[in-house]
Amino acid sequence: MHYSVSLIGSGNVAWHLSQALEKAGHQVREIYSRTPEHAERLAEKLYDAQVVTSLDFSESESTVFLLCISDDAIGRVADQIILPNEDAVICHTSGTQPLDVLAGRSHAGVFYPLQTFTKNRRLDLATVPVCVEASNEPTQQVLVGIAQSISRTVYLVDSQERKMLHVSAVFACNFTNHLLALSKHLLAQEGLQFELLKPLVRETFEKALEVADPAAVQTGPAIREDYQVIHAHLDYLQHTPHWQALYKLITDSIVLLSRRG
Amino acid sequence: MHYSVSLIGSGNVAWHLSQALEKAGHQVREIYSRTPEHAERLAEKLYDAQVVTSLDFSESESTVFLLCISDDAIGRVADQIILPNEDAVICHTSGTQPLDVLAGRSHAGVFYPLQTFTKNRRLDLATVPVCVEASNEPTQQVLVGIAQSISRTVYLVDSQERKMLHVSAVFACNFTNHLLALSKHLLAQEGLQFELLKPLVRETFEKALEVADPAAVQTGPAIREDYQVIHAHLDYLQHTPHWQALYKLITDSIVLLSRRG
Repeated sequence: MHYSVSLIGSGNVAWHLSQALEKAGHQVREIYSRTPEHAERLAEKLYDAQVVTSLDFSESESTVFLLCISDDAIGRVADQIILPNEDAVICHTSGTQPLDVLAGRSHAGVFYPLQTFTKNRRLDLATVPVCVEASNEPTQQVLVGIAQSISRTVYLVDSQERKMLHVSAVFACNFTNHLLALSKHLLAQEGLQFELLKPLVRETFEKALEVADPAAVQTGPAIREDYQVIHAHLDYLQHTPHWQALYKLITDSIVLLSRRG
Repeated sequence: MHYSVSLIGSGNVAWHLSQALEKAGHQVREIYSRTPEHAERLAEKLYDAQVVTSLDFSESESTVFLLCISDDAIGRVADQIILPNEDAVICHTSGTQPLDVLAGRSHAGVFYPLQTFTKNRRLDLATVPVCVEASNEPTQQVLVGIAQSISRTVYLVDSQERKMLHVSAVFACNFTNHLLALSKHLLAQEGLQFELLKPLVRETFEKALEVADPAAVQTGPAIREDYQVIHAHLDYLQHTPHWQALYKLITDSIVLLSRRG
């Protein structure tokens, strides 16, 4: 089934999602953005989307209203939206906000694509898991239907689970990216290039993603509890106490997890 | 130029290195291991390697002796080795040990392939950077020659640089792997599968390895200094204080690095 959709927001998520929706046969009717030029630029990429400058959608023919805006704006913006009728579905796309933030709407939902979006980077949404939550059964059907039309993997995830999913994603993605950045920073201090480490990083990740549990392929001094090497590394980091503390805490964490596992 | 090589050790590094050396035309003459059955198993994979049970190589025809043993054993084992003559090259393959650990040998070196080795996992050594250090010019020529025969990327890295390289590799590989393991552990507490996060992890790493500096593609609440989300996550982790502390420290580290960069 195909739906008429309006987008509130014109950032990275709106950018990827709107094009995927049209590719799947849905119609994007309106785009609202607090920066109309961004909405214009996105509209140019779409078949027949109109840029609107008001959150009054009372005349809209859309049945689904997708909030693709920053987490802290969702509640405030959602309160201002005037939907065309009681049957209209309104949902946000945030990993951190509960369904409750749309409380008061009869058909509310969450449509959370679990991926990191960069505007000019191609991304096959079919491979991106979409996490869906809804305030009632008919809304869930609509959102699952849309999700399945653009992605091969759709999960029903409630607000509590989504919170843990988001914390876990911060560890697995944001924090790992930071460790790579930090590693590059440390190498640069010695005049060494990050290129040198890339094959090792690539192999590490391929291995971690192949196995059922990355803990099973943990290597390095911490898992061996090789305190001779660990202390040499800590000594080496003594002039950057923050990163020395980080080294120590992650080392402890590796030992801790291995004893629990 | 092709060399005759003897291997001391029969673990993962010896396993991959010896086969790559033979593929490149060198001859592996002898394998020593404190566990002769392991040496036997490796010898079966090679053309004509003999298993030896003594570190007395005075009758050996090899010109290069490669120590592929654990870091803490290198000094002790190296001291016991009797080389056939003064011209023989002896080197270790460790990222953590200095060249000095072979002090007293006239042709000493380090031949450090920057990769994580797993015995039954295929690995194309051609893509693995090899870091070479030597006690003199002729030894360096031999080791660079061997390195170039098996890998496309050979670097001259001295002991001090190699130490930083190893610390950085711990951050970029061992620690990132741990964060993936921890993420899986946290998800499991909520009954969620790590599979859900894999596309996001994959995209994160592809992005980080494409750019010159992973710091440039840092995303998440820390880099946005979104303390509303950060505090929600810290609250969420309150029953696992160690991982709460880790969340906090990495978050601070992201902010710190962004202000330095």
